Amino acid sequence: MGRRKDKIKLGAFLLFTGHHVAAWRHPQASVGTDFENYFELAKLAEAAKFDAIFFADGVAARLKVVEAASRKAHSGVYPFEPITLLSALSSVTRNIGLIATASTSFSDPYNLARQFGSLDRLSAGRAGWNLVTSSDPEAAYNFGHEAQILHADRYDRAEEFADVVLGLWDSWDDDAFIRDRESGRYFDPERLHRLDHKGRHFKVRGPLNIPRSPQGRPVLVQAGASGPGKELAARTAEAIFAAHITLDEAKSFYADVKGKLGAYGRSLDDLKILPGIFPVVGRSETEAQEKFEALQELIQPQVGLNLLSQLSGVDLSPYPLDGPIPSDLPVTNAGKSRQELVLDLARRENLTIRQLYLRIAGARGHWQVVGTPSQIADVMEERFENYGADGFNIMAPIMPGGLADFIELVVPELRRRGLFRTEYEGTTLRENLGLKRPVNRFAVSNAAAAE
Amino acid sequence: MGRRKDKIKLGAFLLFTGHHVAAWRHPQASVGTDFENYFELAKLAEAAKFDAIFFADGVAARLKVVEAASRKAHSGVYPFEPITLLSALSSVTRNIGLIATASTSFSDPYNLARQFGSLDRLSAGRAGWNLVTSSDPEAAYNFGHEAQILHADRYDRAEEFADVVLGLWDSWDDDAFIRDRESGRYFDPERLHRLDHKGRHFKVRGPLNIPRSPQGRPVLVQAGASGPGKELAARTAEAIFAAHITLDEAKSFYADVKGKLGAYGRSLDDLKILPGIFPVVGRSETEAQEKFEALQELIQPQVGLNLLSQLSGVDLSPYPLDGPIPSDLPVTNAGKSRQELVLDLARRENLTIRQLYLRIAGARGHWQVVGTPSQIADVMEERFENYGADGFNIMAPIMPGGLADFIELVVPELRRRGLFRTEYEGTTLRENLGLKRPVNRFAVSNAAAAE
Ligand SMILES: Cc1cc2nc3c(=O)[nH]c(=O)nc-3n(C[C@H](O)[C@H](O)[C@H](O)COP(=O)(O)O)c2cc1C
Ligand SMILES: Cc1cc2nc3c(=O)[nH]c(=O)nc-3n(C[C@H](O)[C@H](O)[C@H](O)COP(=O)(O)O)c2cc1C
Repeated sequence: MGRRKDKIKLGAFLLFTGHHVAAWRHPQASVGTDFENYFELAKLAEAAKFDAIFFADGVAARLKVVEAASRKAHSGVYPFEPITLLSALSSVTRNIGLIATASTSFSDPYNLARQFGSLDRLSAGRAGWNLVTSSDPEAAYNFGHEAQILHADRYDRAEEFADVVLGLWDSWDDDAFIRDRESGRYFDPERLHRLDHKGRHFKVRGPLNIPRSPQGRPVLVQAGASGPGKELAARTAEAIFAAHITLDEAKSFYADVKGKLGAYGRSLDDLKILPGIFPVVGRSETEAQEKFEALQELIQPQVGLNLLSQLSGVDLSPYPLDGPIPSDLPVTNAGKSRQELVLDLARRENLTIRQLYLRIAGARGHWQVVGTPSQIADVMEERFENYGADGFNIMAPIMPGGLADFIELVVPELRRRGLFRTEYEGTTLRENLGLKRPVNRFAVSNAAAAE
Repeated sequence: MGRRKDKIKLGAFLLFTGHHVAAWRHPQASVGTDFENYFELAKLAEAAKFDAIFFADGVAARLKVVEAASRKAHSGVYPFEPITLLSALSSVTRNIGLIATASTSFSDPYNLARQFGSLDRLSAGRAGWNLVTSSDPEAAYNFGHEAQILHADRYDRAEEFADVVLGLWDSWDDDAFIRDRESGRYFDPERLHRLDHKGRHFKVRGPLNIPRSPQGRPVLVQAGASGPGKELAARTAEAIFAAHITLDEAKSFYADVKGKLGAYGRSLDDLKILPGIFPVVGRSETEAQEKFEALQELIQPQVGLNLLSQLSGVDLSPYPLDGPIPSDLPVTNAGKSRQELVLDLARRENLTIRQLYLRIAGARGHWQVVGTPSQIADVMEERFENYGADGFNIMAPIMPGGLADFIELVVPELRRRGLFRTEYEGTTLRENLGLKRPVNRFAVSNAAAAE
């Protein structure tokens, strides 16, 4: 296999105070939750030429166990809502992509299409939407439901939701607004396209009441890893945020999803796969281990157990903390792929419940690497060159230090190996990710448009 | 009657290219629809110490008559969605209030409460929500409806929507997030409040997954003038954006709404009334008239007629353009107050359809004043001192020139008369508007909080 010609894409996953569950208790973590704290992180990532900053999101505080929730920084309560936060960042950054998570289960396609279209225009072409269906069971209670929406129903709605949003983003030709003062024509009615969508979940006339955006449309990202999740991604997504631990998992997911593209008339380059990585960087192996241990020691047992329950979708609190994972756990309606991932890990390594929560508390089911800059660059290179990833979402253990470490120590090493850019290739997120600008499906032909 | 002790509040109503329907055709109007164009306007308003910038909004392109719509800059298609736009402006302004319109008919209370809460945090306390119920009949088609929602039903939903949002904004005490590294407690569970709302339209558990905002909550503005609109405002709003033409109309609206406050246990200062004013400023009367005529001449007949139909809620195109307004027009389901306002004007002044559209095309049902700086200051002062208004929303005819004219010529005149501030009184929108910071209804007592 020859060396890949493209380069690694990097996203900065900006979870405040840091990705490790106990980061906020660490004396070097910032617990500031002001705009300035995020601005600082965005500037760091942009100066390092990251493709994008990335925000996870949810629409509920996770309060099933309030006692445990109150001991976590990340109980589903975020300092800011991501679309507004990225909009605020758009006017004080220039090049970095701005990707916000929003749920198809608890939002409306017209409003969502419009807000992301607006963000793309505000940022001159740097917006991305991370489409999720929300695995959190508590979100449903904030939106009129009595119980969580079933996995299959969430994806049924997500498929149609994506179609509506993509359709609305083609409401106007790029050159629809002619603003001809002389003739008094502000837009060309032929370059306006009503959607007239009628489906099982939505009825939306259109057009979207915002002009087409600089990227044609925002980049569509996805983060679901079940069968239906992969199918939706293969059909519509341009990037996938994934969670894999082993190289084999990563390679088989990569091959699986890329293999589905052809059936939808898409090519391998049309979808970038960007798994998360939780890097604990030290100038020596010992330093890295010590950094990691310092965080692990801050994990409170209730919190570890709570996180494990949240990720595996089942409540493990009735079982002995130092016993094995019970083999007869029920399959849940939450994130199936996450549940399997976590339980597989426990079985493979024969872990107790306590050992398991210590294993996943930091990276939360993502790939955890503790080592020197060259060790970390080695495994990233390996995963990239072996087609397990097109790039990575960097989940720094503590903020801002963990991100600064990665940028100061690992990024130069990736550059030395020719694996990461030294300058932005373009001005839009699409151009930097190497994605095509989509043609408007409804557009009047170029010949007609040129008249 | 003694002179009022408070000062005039000023909002800048930032409609791109200008408020006059034909502004975009004027050689001096900017037709730029980039972020930079808005940033320029926001900077102008902030340098002049305006209380706020204000954005109207709708969730549909108005396409009933595409031919006419395509000849207007304001056909319901906005360059940006206002919440994202104001978020982007929040990071590049310091003092000015940021008020966005959003509809209770076509959005969701949890998402809306969260985004405005986020904007308030991003701006360190400068956010306002202009609650509207959407009179535009076309919006319904983008949200699954077969026809416009009835006026009474829109207000029924709006009442409950406001309650849910206000309740969610009290989800957390101001000091709920203690972030105590030592004890491992991130928030105090006693200072978290679930809403558990169950009503006719909404079922929302809460809490909102964002901390309480710097102003306690964003300023609640409203813009509905019917009976139900005034009642909702008297109960919940802190500012009203209104449309009045005569001093008598303004005074009776003012007295009416302020008179309702007592019944809700509120005082006269708890609600500011800020009608729109469309000022055409000239250094001489002749210059002002010429400026106005130059705009009027640019109005295309289809556009004038279309606008009239939109504002009065009835299609007047079957009637002769130079004939009178028919007396047997049906009452519509759209904005009742707007319809009456427009038709009353026509009857009072015995106008033809063409004369009427020429009368309202500029100010669109708002108060139009064409004159010198001192003439304009005179009528503003008169309306303020006679309790017809607590301030005004300035609807500049063309942008940026019309706003710059008002700031350069009228604002100094208001200052000379001691009617307008020279420096911001506070740092939040509430402080500048002279509104109290609301107490959290659920908060644990101050004594307990101080433990
Ligand atoms: C890597 C990854 C990240 C995710 N991030 C979010 C998120 O930020 N917010 C959210 O509501 N759901 C998130 N999800 C959940 C998915 O959207 C989806 O609802 C859930 O995983 C169930 O779908 P699946 O079984 O296809 O994975 C994430 C899932 C994965 C795999
Ligand atoms: C001065 C004023 C400004 C308004 N601005 C908006 C707006 O920006 N967007 C909108 O959807 N509705 C707007 N409305 C409509 C109101 O929200 C309301 O839906 C409509 O007027 C019907 O209510 P009413 O009969 O109480 O006035 C406005 C109404 C008034 C009086």
